[in-house]
Amino acid sequence: MATYLQVETSKIRRFSEALFQSYGFTEEESQAISDVVIMADLYGVESHGVQRLIRYHDEIISGMVNPRAKTEIVTETGISALIDANKAMGQLVSLQGMNIAIKKALAQGCGMVTVRNSNHYGIAGYYSEMAAGKDLIGICFSNSEAIGVPTFGAQGMLGTNPIALAMPADPIMFSYDASTTVTPRGTLEVLIKNNKPLPDGWAIDAKGNSTVDTVEVLNNIIHKSGGGLAPLGGAGVLHGGHKGYGLGIIVDLFTAVLSNGLTSNYVNITPGLNGICHYFMAIDYGIFGDKAAIKAGMSKFLQELRDSKKAEGQDRIYVHGEKEAETMVERINGNIPVNEKTLKEMKNIASKQGVSWNLD
Amino acid sequence: MATYLQVETSKIRRFSEALFQSYGFTEEESQAISDVVIMADLYGVESHGVQRLIRYHDEIISGMVNPRAKTEIVTETGISALIDANKAMGQLVSLQGMNIAIKKALAQGCGMVTVRNSNHYGIAGYYSEMAAGKDLIGICFSNSEAIGVPTFGAQGMLGTNPIALAMPADPIMFSYDASTTVTPRGTLEVLIKNNKPLPDGWAIDAKGNSTVDTVEVLNNIIHKSGGGLAPLGGAGVLHGGHKGYGLGIIVDLFTAVLSNGLTSNYVNITPGLNGICHYFMAIDYGIFGDKAAIKAGMSKFLQELRDSKKAEGQDRIYVHGEKEAETMVERINGNIPVNEKTLKEMKNIASKQGVSWNLD
Repeated sequence: MATYLQVETSKIRRFSEALFQSYGFTEEESQAISDVVIMADLYGVESHGVQRLIRYHDEIISGMVNPRAKTEIVTETGISALIDANKAMGQLVSLQGMNIAIKKALAQGCGMVTVRNSNHYGIAGYYSEMAAGKDLIGICFSNSEAIGVPTFGAQGMLGTNPIALAMPADPIMFSYDASTTVTPRGTLEVLIKNNKPLPDGWAIDAKGNSTVDTVEVLNNIIHKSGGGLAPLGGAGVLHGGHKGYGLGIIVDLFTAVLSNGLTSNYVNITPGLNGICHYFMAIDYGIFGDKAAIKAGMSKFLQELRDSKKAEGQDRIYVHGEKEAETMVERINGNIPVNEKTLKEMKNIASKQGVSWNLD
Repeated sequence: MATYLQVETSKIRRFSEALFQSYGFTEEESQAISDVVIMADLYGVESHGVQRLIRYHDEIISGMVNPRAKTEIVTETGISALIDANKAMGQLVSLQGMNIAIKKALAQGCGMVTVRNSNHYGIAGYYSEMAAGKDLIGICFSNSEAIGVPTFGAQGMLGTNPIALAMPADPIMFSYDASTTVTPRGTLEVLIKNNKPLPDGWAIDAKGNSTVDTVEVLNNIIHKSGGGLAPLGGAGVLHGGHKGYGLGIIVDLFTAVLSNGLTSNYVNITPGLNGICHYFMAIDYGIFGDKAAIKAGMSKFLQELRDSKKAEGQDRIYVHGEKEAETMVERINGNIPVNEKTLKEMKNIASKQGVSWNLD
């Protein structure tokens, strides 16, 4: 088993901000990026937290991410916009994209923004929750490097293509954020750091068969030698894998097809270009009726789900966003557990970038 | 094995139209309802085709469905509407709802319509495809009687809650239409008619454990004695069942919460009231750029999926809507295979309603 070290959240934040400034991002930009990265760790989503700093480092150094990129609004209507990220850091163009969607929703009832030529943006839920924080429904999709294998296929053609949706509710907002593959790629990285195999039905080998060999799958993904992750529902059609496959296509439709950007199967295949595409949507649910009544209806339904009969041996039914919110309460003024291998990678980056290091 | 009889499609259509007229629907309404019902059989979706006529019969006779209902537009904006179906036949208010969404999308770029107090509406894909037929993106959700069990639960709290999305493409449109449970209820009915067990992981017994006993599960559903269907991804969390559970909640949010209608757990529990809720959305994708280029991009991506490497033993990768379109070509001017038990039910209804019978 891997060792996890407890590191002060405030120290991690300061380190991350200093690190991003070392690449040429402004102080404000570095704070914004770090807030998205660290929110993942606060939510317990280790795969999308500081363990990604090494990938961000490599992508910035290799020129995939341009810290001085100027994004461009290519087309715009009262309810929509298309942004060319021009290789900006994913988090920065995504904050811009969701802020535009929110502004349009507040003015017109609905805002939809599609983004091309971007990079990895962290957890999708960060952006959908921005809209929920403004008392709107927030939706966010992203495509990504093709590691999701179509049903009956043997080759990654779709990204992990997450779907996120947040809606205000009491006592806490509903926040769904899930890949349309059975698991995101980051989970593979975490499993490998912990020397754990894949659960059966999660991954596909280069010939299209199920496999549990985590290292082989990640190697195949890195070298594009075939296979990858099964769609939500698993390999084959028995548990609905063809449905997850279709949801993955829908994510590519809203992100890449509408933006005339790169579909997942073209992401990260040209040297120096990720080309990831995103979609942000905000809906002012007041267009359908009294907002207080609608929010109360959502809260009541979620509570009824929590209160419904439990399976033998289970004492709790969760609604989405609850586990994450509880983990955040523990961690925000405390510590984040960081894998020792991740910490070593971070120290290594710090040394390369000349950023002072006090996390171990 | 059950016996299937080949029945002429045109005869089935004429029978269905006459049957619905016998309940008091106009000729035009009866044609519209029948077109939705028979489209399911043409697509090979037996569960939602004429095998549902017995349930529609019972619901009309019991007063759940009111053939003379007047629907009411409760609130409306340039991009949205809320309709109270007032117990109308699901297909009729759904055609109205999607037509309003289409009209708003053509004028404003986007239209969203939520509907309460409705009934079962057939296949969700019928309505999303209406929008795609107008060169728009069409989206359609519906809640339904609670037979979907939350992850770690032992009680149906969510409907099968389908998600449908259609988008124009060449050579045929992309059309996704899938329940957010591993399977819809109609599949149980079809399995029972064929004396087949459930695949493992599809269903949950009254104590919250996995079961393969189709008859027990359907009996539990009918008598509301607990258990039901697993979410997309299956029982537990291993293959992402918690993700399907969350998608089910999202469908109830757009259908029931936004319309201030009944969430799935209240559907069909008050005598004489189904209370099903729907959501229809149309997006003019021209708000993001040149429509021909966007449609060409979608077509190209779908073709690349079809052309991607196949798993060992597989010779074809499908995209969504393809199988259905091919089945329709075979059947539209030919025959529909009808289960002999379904045909017997239909003959029985014909006799009760005094509708002439020539299908066997």
